[in-house]
Amino acid sequence: MKTDENFLLGLCQMATRVAKEENLRQAQQMVQQAAQEGCRLVVLPEMFSCPYQAALFPKYAEPAEGETVSRMSAWARESGVVLVGGSIPECDEAGRVYNTSFVFDEQGGLLGRHRKMHLFDVDIAGGTCFRESDTLTAGNELILCETSVGVLGVGICYDMRFGAMAGEMVRRGADLLIYPAAFGWTTGPAHWELTLRARAVDHQVFVVGAAPAKLAGSVYEAYGHSLVADPWGRILFQADETEQLVKVEIDRAVQAKVRAELPLLQHLRGDYRILPQQ
Amino acid sequence: MKTDENFLLGLCQMATRVAKEENLRQAQQMVQQAAQEGCRLVVLPEMFSCPYQAALFPKYAEPAEGETVSRMSAWARESGVVLVGGSIPECDEAGRVYNTSFVFDEQGGLLGRHRKMHLFDVDIAGGTCFRESDTLTAGNELILCETSVGVLGVGICYDMRFGAMAGEMVRRGADLLIYPAAFGWTTGPAHWELTLRARAVDHQVFVVGAAPAKLAGSVYEAYGHSLVADPWGRILFQADETEQLVKVEIDRAVQAKVRAELPLLQHLRGDYRILPQQ
Repeated sequence: MKTDENFLLGLCQMATRVAKEENLRQAQQMVQQAAQEGCRLVVLPEMFSCPYQAALFPKYAEPAEGETVSRMSAWARESGVVLVGGSIPECDEAGRVYNTSFVFDEQGGLLGRHRKMHLFDVDIAGGTCFRESDTLTAGNELILCETSVGVLGVGICYDMRFGAMAGEMVRRGADLLIYPAAFGWTTGPAHWELTLRARAVDHQVFVVGAAPAKLAGSVYEAYGHSLVADPWGRILFQADETEQLVKVEIDRAVQAKVRAELPLLQHLRGDYRILPQQ
Repeated sequence: MKTDENFLLGLCQMATRVAKEENLRQAQQMVQQAAQEGCRLVVLPEMFSCPYQAALFPKYAEPAEGETVSRMSAWARESGVVLVGGSIPECDEAGRVYNTSFVFDEQGGLLGRHRKMHLFDVDIAGGTCFRESDTLTAGNELILCETSVGVLGVGICYDMRFGAMAGEMVRRGADLLIYPAAFGWTTGPAHWELTLRARAVDHQVFVVGAAPAKLAGSVYEAYGHSLVADPWGRILFQADETEQLVKVEIDRAVQAKVRAELPLLQHLRGDYRILPQQ
């Protein structure tokens, strides 16, 4: 696309329920709605097909050739949108399970697959305790997806905390960093907005955090607050925690303007020594 | 020091005036006051001796062996504090001028010298326009200073926007990142707090932004807002733009707690491929 062409981005902030089929229907309905309302790029949240519980990931997991991926491809094709399929538990032939985001073009073609690289193993006193590594295997690859709305870099949730990964994707040409993510109510209020805005300002890209809605009473209550920040760090929209389709107009020209005025990416250096030397 | 020992940090948010001698006296007075009020680590702002104008840096510049460095050493020794001497224009034998921070221990010994690595060359429509590189040369070294209050990493102003540099300092053991800095009123409201908090959260360290006060009517009006963030990204204190001595109690135990609960630094990876491969 031309960099001065605006487009509409849709984030499907849906609640993830126990029944996989219910989740898939809800996702399909929201993708269709987003397309009908003019969105050209649609993003689903992390683990939209499966409740966010480590023990459930293997039970809900499917291979890349499985039905859920095939259905996502169909949603993209039928609606004519670029689709970042949030993430689902993906299993490989060896029985390993990954937290994987599949990305499709408007024809339903698979553009790439990102397996969450940084697994969320934390234990915060009085707050969140989670060990993804109990059931998940980490990925080893970053993807860049050339689409009709720009080059997409994809990370999943905890991946967003690692600025170097964002920097690598931008250095290779990413215009938008898309993070399907499911922060909770410990780190959400503390770090969600800050981290997404920081990635945007540090690397001068649009940054998208696509979250599930909060489902009161579920084992893991998501923070919601799907957010889009522009390359100056302005919040274009931030949701609350309820179910909703978020639509945000992206003005790609902002990126070139910000990068010309404050040429951070040109000023980045790696040619220094550190004292005392080891 | 023991990591569970608290200490008081002092930031001298002074206005920088045209007369160098007036600036030095004001700095000396504030360092003394901070020490009298119990501070063990005292930080001066960027270019505290010289108005922040590129054309003035060569005129105010002194060699490392010059009077200003010698006086800073005496302030640290006489007050018995660790002193991060903000920054001053420093000239070398070849006539090059740097934006340099000198760091002293309680005996007045020089612990290290950081020359600003990323020069501030920006031109923001309707806002700040500045070209440090018109008169300044960039440094090529990071320093880590072992002190009685922890290991200090030092960056100057624009340096703070480069997360990889902060990450390097933390990887080599920095407990506190100290940024003498003079943001203005374009980037200040947009990025000051965000960037300092992001460095704290991403790298799980205390982060200090030590700014000059705003001097109404000066050619470059500083944003002020000296700030200290803890390793969870909490703002321990943020000033307004007026002249003041900021005192903040640092509870070093917070760092170990945050790093144990959310082990970001252990989870950091560099072993991935990027697709498509180039």
